[in-house]
Amino acid sequence: MSKTNKLPTMKDVAVAAGVSLGTVSKVFNGIPVGAEYKNKVDAAAKMLGYQVNEYARGLRASKTNTIAVIVPNVIHPFYSTLADMCCNKLSEKGYRMLLATTSFDPQTEQQCIDMVQQNKVDGIIAITYNPELDVKEDIPFVIIDRKFHHRVPCVSSDNYAGGQLAAEKLVEKGCSNLLFLGISSHVPGEADKRNLGFASYCQTNNIKHTIHRVWDEDGFDDIKAFIDSSIKNGKFAYDGIFVSTDMLAIQVMDYLKKHDISIPEDVQVIGFDGIPKFGFDGYYCSTIKQPLDKMAATAIDILLNQEINSTPSLVCLPVEYCEGDTTK
Amino acid sequence: MSKTNKLPTMKDVAVAAGVSLGTVSKVFNGIPVGAEYKNKVDAAAKMLGYQVNEYARGLRASKTNTIAVIVPNVIHPFYSTLADMCCNKLSEKGYRMLLATTSFDPQTEQQCIDMVQQNKVDGIIAITYNPELDVKEDIPFVIIDRKFHHRVPCVSSDNYAGGQLAAEKLVEKGCSNLLFLGISSHVPGEADKRNLGFASYCQTNNIKHTIHRVWDEDGFDDIKAFIDSSIKNGKFAYDGIFVSTDMLAIQVMDYLKKHDISIPEDVQVIGFDGIPKFGFDGYYCSTIKQPLDKMAATAIDILLNQEINSTPSLVCLPVEYCEGDTTK
Repeated sequence: MSKTNKLPTMKDVAVAAGVSLGTVSKVFNGIPVGAEYKNKVDAAAKMLGYQVNEYARGLRASKTNTIAVIVPNVIHPFYSTLADMCCNKLSEKGYRMLLATTSFDPQTEQQCIDMVQQNKVDGIIAITYNPELDVKEDIPFVIIDRKFHHRVPCVSSDNYAGGQLAAEKLVEKGCSNLLFLGISSHVPGEADKRNLGFASYCQTNNIKHTIHRVWDEDGFDDIKAFIDSSIKNGKFAYDGIFVSTDMLAIQVMDYLKKHDISIPEDVQVIGFDGIPKFGFDGYYCSTIKQPLDKMAATAIDILLNQEINSTPSLVCLPVEYCEGDTTK
Repeated sequence: MSKTNKLPTMKDVAVAAGVSLGTVSKVFNGIPVGAEYKNKVDAAAKMLGYQVNEYARGLRASKTNTIAVIVPNVIHPFYSTLADMCCNKLSEKGYRMLLATTSFDPQTEQQCIDMVQQNKVDGIIAITYNPELDVKEDIPFVIIDRKFHHRVPCVSSDNYAGGQLAAEKLVEKGCSNLLFLGISSHVPGEADKRNLGFASYCQTNNIKHTIHRVWDEDGFDDIKAFIDSSIKNGKFAYDGIFVSTDMLAIQVMDYLKKHDISIPEDVQVIGFDGIPKFGFDGYYCSTIKQPLDKMAATAIDILLNQEINSTPSLVCLPVEYCEGDTTK
């Protein structure tokens, strides 16, 4: 704990440096003064432990060195890892991170946006499910995972290529009757391209395949009914499944195992996301991994170097296949 | 996106409300004016979409409505869940959350503290591993999980009672030769009390028990050697294990299974933390669950209502036993 209760003032710095208060003010506000004066002020400020009031500076320079990150929550590993990486990368660049969570609620998202705009942040990175969001045009704004508005840059992983890669891997591993299983949100997003890429690979390469997509969070009952109807005489109709997320994949596998369908012997499974297995190296299943570190870095780069004419409207970053124990 | 580029000013509000600029300023700064004037100003501000500049207000009132939360990372579910709950609870109270992550590095922790102090936050909640941390005395500061300084309030779960509860449950479930396995940090913390509570229950109730504690993150090799030495003729020497964390528990169980020791048939296992199983309801193992929601709420309550004389120096919140499939 610090021993001093009273903080040094600009006046204290001026006295210690032997210069006028005006000179100290100029130095702290980045207004040019002679190098000799600047050095004296910097040395005195350091000696006294003077801390520039960043709020006052933010007010004058209209720059707060603060970026707001808005995500549904930081409990799901996808969001928490993304938030963690944004926090680290912003910190490396001298920025603070204001975190706001929305629980997927469109109204809460708007409140978060209003709140951080009041706080005069230098930019906003958001994963949002509210297509009606009202954001001031003069605040740099980057969306992750969901094309939001033609004026707002979006960073996502290459979901389409990920779907193609999943199909290719299943075929490479000997599967000949493929299934896509996915639960979709009613708000269209980049993730919808996973099944399109998967279907495209199968069509191009003449692979027998079925797409089974259901809607919203309660869709697992529909998935279970579909699995039930696909089991005849104890045998599952498909030998390879691409599931839209790792979380859904492990739920699907759990349900298949309850029906004595073995993985990967009877059916091979590939998920999407690349969620690391808690407590171990590796993944919950063979998976298409999203490059969260590169997504965070790219979103921040676009945000901090924003030039309206050269900023891309969508950046898709390459995914990779990671082997788990759910494929042969 | 908003259609207007130009933001309304206080002057615009004054014109729209038909009052003087001084009256508008008073209302925005909480200085009493007649109810009729206040209503006019509020209505005009709402109509024009005027947003009070919170930075300017923070500067005047020395209040920023911002709380810094400093944690090692938001990837481990313990830290990410805690951060998520702090974020929600602060938001309910009208506070913003500045998030900083430290990767367990004492120097980074000090830099984070310095950074947020510059930002004039209203308070700091931290999980810190740096006992030398230099924090200004005039900033409200609450530590989670680790008693830091007699002047700094600490909120943790009741780790001692958790150790007792784990021993009690194992005995209740028929175990008679108990083992504690734990990896400890070199920075003493509340978590060290888990094995003390466990040992205390066993001693009081005359239960045969062994405490095996190793140091630091690389200690799993030591744990493996201990397990190897405890297996004679394919039989494990203990019938009940309390492991200091859920993460270590699942690693221990994985290692035991590789030696054909069945859980819970041959040995029952209870972990600590209550980490929810990814993708499912329930837990990775039977576990002593930390009340993260109550810990976040209590830390925030202490921080925002801080009165030096009445604030407790340590608040331990009750844990609970949650059944998994690793006990009978």
